[in-house]
Amino acid sequence: MKQSNLFTKTQKEIPSDEEAKNAQLLIRAGYIHKEMAGVYQLLPLGLMVVQNIKQIVREEMKDLGTNEISATTLQSKELWERTDRWDDKNVDVWFKSDLQAGGEVGLAWSHEEPMANMMKNHVSSYKHLPVAIYQFQNKLRNEVRAKSGMMRGREFIMKDAYSFAATEEQHEDFYDKCKIAYTKAFDRMGVGDDTYITFAAGGAFTEFSHEFQTVCEAGEDICYINKEKGIAINEEVFNDKTCEDLGVTKEEMVETKTAEVGNIFNFGRQKAEEVGLFFKDENGERTPVWMGSYGIGITRMMGVLVEKFADEKGIVWPESVAPYQVHLVGLNTDDSEIVDWADGLYTTLKSKGVSVLYDDRDARPGDKFADSDLIGLPYRIVVSKKAKENGTFEVVTRQTGEVRQLTETELLADFS
Amino acid sequence: MKQSNLFTKTQKEIPSDEEAKNAQLLIRAGYIHKEMAGVYQLLPLGLMVVQNIKQIVREEMKDLGTNEISATTLQSKELWERTDRWDDKNVDVWFKSDLQAGGEVGLAWSHEEPMANMMKNHVSSYKHLPVAIYQFQNKLRNEVRAKSGMMRGREFIMKDAYSFAATEEQHEDFYDKCKIAYTKAFDRMGVGDDTYITFAAGGAFTEFSHEFQTVCEAGEDICYINKEKGIAINEEVFNDKTCEDLGVTKEEMVETKTAEVGNIFNFGRQKAEEVGLFFKDENGERTPVWMGSYGIGITRMMGVLVEKFADEKGIVWPESVAPYQVHLVGLNTDDSEIVDWADGLYTTLKSKGVSVLYDDRDARPGDKFADSDLIGLPYRIVVSKKAKENGTFEVVTRQTGEVRQLTETELLADFS
Repeated sequence: MKQSNLFTKTQKEIPSDEEAKNAQLLIRAGYIHKEMAGVYQLLPLGLMVVQNIKQIVREEMKDLGTNEISATTLQSKELWERTDRWDDKNVDVWFKSDLQAGGEVGLAWSHEEPMANMMKNHVSSYKHLPVAIYQFQNKLRNEVRAKSGMMRGREFIMKDAYSFAATEEQHEDFYDKCKIAYTKAFDRMGVGDDTYITFAAGGAFTEFSHEFQTVCEAGEDICYINKEKGIAINEEVFNDKTCEDLGVTKEEMVETKTAEVGNIFNFGRQKAEEVGLFFKDENGERTPVWMGSYGIGITRMMGVLVEKFADEKGIVWPESVAPYQVHLVGLNTDDSEIVDWADGLYTTLKSKGVSVLYDDRDARPGDKFADSDLIGLPYRIVVSKKAKENGTFEVVTRQTGEVRQLTETELLADFS
Repeated sequence: MKQSNLFTKTQKEIPSDEEAKNAQLLIRAGYIHKEMAGVYQLLPLGLMVVQNIKQIVREEMKDLGTNEISATTLQSKELWERTDRWDDKNVDVWFKSDLQAGGEVGLAWSHEEPMANMMKNHVSSYKHLPVAIYQFQNKLRNEVRAKSGMMRGREFIMKDAYSFAATEEQHEDFYDKCKIAYTKAFDRMGVGDDTYITFAAGGAFTEFSHEFQTVCEAGEDICYINKEKGIAINEEVFNDKTCEDLGVTKEEMVETKTAEVGNIFNFGRQKAEEVGLFFKDENGERTPVWMGSYGIGITRMMGVLVEKFADEKGIVWPESVAPYQVHLVGLNTDDSEIVDWADGLYTTLKSKGVSVLYDDRDARPGDKFADSDLIGLPYRIVVSKKAKENGTFEVVTRQTGEVRQLTETELLADFS
């Protein structure tokens, strides 16, 4: 895309109403717009990052044989009363509203209940199980505080999956496969080495639940981690007994700030029983379904990646989620020969399937480089009079700062 | 996709709580799930249809050089007060909720205000104009009645675009181009011949606004149409003066039920003035931006297509939006030779890029055919013992009922 066609502008000033580094940088670089605390519009580049993160997660979920669906924001009071989760005393993040036609509606902060309820129309026999579904969905949570930018939104995008199984064995099988799929997804997003399957406070059915926690200074959680053994324990269950169960000592665990990027819950059969999701087993017995839920915070991940990889100049995206791979920066825009050359390279790179943001604007080199550093695409290629004279382009790797001088042939070989 | 991997089941019974044909059929065929009146989950096939409709609209919007973004559901009271559209007396479809941190939030029923407000950070000079943006977004509307299924939701997906221009000429230019893009989009969805640019009640700035109305028995609007002249007038402005202005007589206009599938509004400069979106013109004068908004009802279109094309057997999708092009129906599933043959054809078709739903289920032929008719994919190919003996497959075109007997070679040539 030509940058002259991108309506967003970068800004030098740090937004005064924003404390979180991730949101400050994302606003300054034009990825997002702050609607209110914890609520952000996704602008073109921001939407692309989110779609890239979604696509990684989608591919891993599809590999598990799950179907994608899309549930609703409006939620029925009656349904959530059945599981005793309508009352603000039990769930303290509801947004609720009056319905003109009478009664109240809730705005979805989570979707276990509607998913289980919908499934009643499609599951009646053990032959229909196991099945798993997922969605990417806005969640609305009436948080008292929202100061962590994209890492704790009042409105945010989550991938949530739900598994439905006839037996504990089927249930465990999907649960374990999902853990592996999540590990792959976080690997692909560049945080695999820093993301731990963490033992956390369980629900009613298991001693622990499993969270995926990524080491992150700006994270809101604290975990105790043994990097060598690959073991992490959320502070909420960090005690002698847990350590003993997991074969570690308290002393060898290092207190670390982390961000929860994923979680998986085992509902056992209770949720299905409450909602009324039963099937006939092989003996014709009416039996509640085993349920699990599996979340990944999509927009939170965007914030975590900024927090973890940004440097003093701006954002540094992993290649897998960057909105474009290459920032082609054209200088000497008053020289038509150089402009033609830059235009040509843009066309060639695109024809080779390289995704390029082409800074064709009439602006000062210093401003262009500062914008480029702030926006944080993986590679910058500079087209200038000097490059023309040298017969080589300057190629800068954003993450390492490595500078290479490549001929056009070398360049095209490198990016193909 | 193998139908055995699709968790949704069809149902024979008409849902008792649903009056609208479109929702009845979509529920029975497993495309959607009714959460509550006017609120529907999109199940796998339904999500695919919506994504196909979106993709057609996205391509036409991209051709106009617009940027895709995604605004938010949560809306700031203060922003909407500035344009006097917070008060329920002025806008009667708000869902509103209390914020735990204090104050109130609204749930977006429309997005003109936040879009104009966001643009204040990115437009300050005539050099930044014109610009246009679009999004696909959930809208929540607190409708008193919601009895038309997907055609009038309390929660629904809309494509809304917004144009920002420095001059009336720039503004009219985009407005006219958008009309053409809309016409193309409706053509591609198979309703071009039945969709009219309709003169309707205008806003504050123009005598008329323009709606795109599709002839549809289940539509909630009434238009007066002259098919030959391609002129349509919404009943709200159907009078002698309008007819005279448009060069028609009242008598030659035919009263017709229609569904509003798109609309375009001209806000002049008032909206920008109220929100505070100004730019410096070429003379350095501080000037409010010209704004227009451009909507297409994505999920409503899904309902309209069902209403228009369904027959007594079920849904009939236009090829451009069908979730799959081909319904491959395997019979004689107890005969491994036939199953292998069907599996092979499925693999071959997929490898040729044909999108196929493969009914590999162990079910009675009559049930399979009834499901296939109900689901309404454009082409059905039957693989059976009989086909094997004849050396030809039965290929049925859903829309016309045409039956052809094709050899495998003919079949692959036809679908490549």
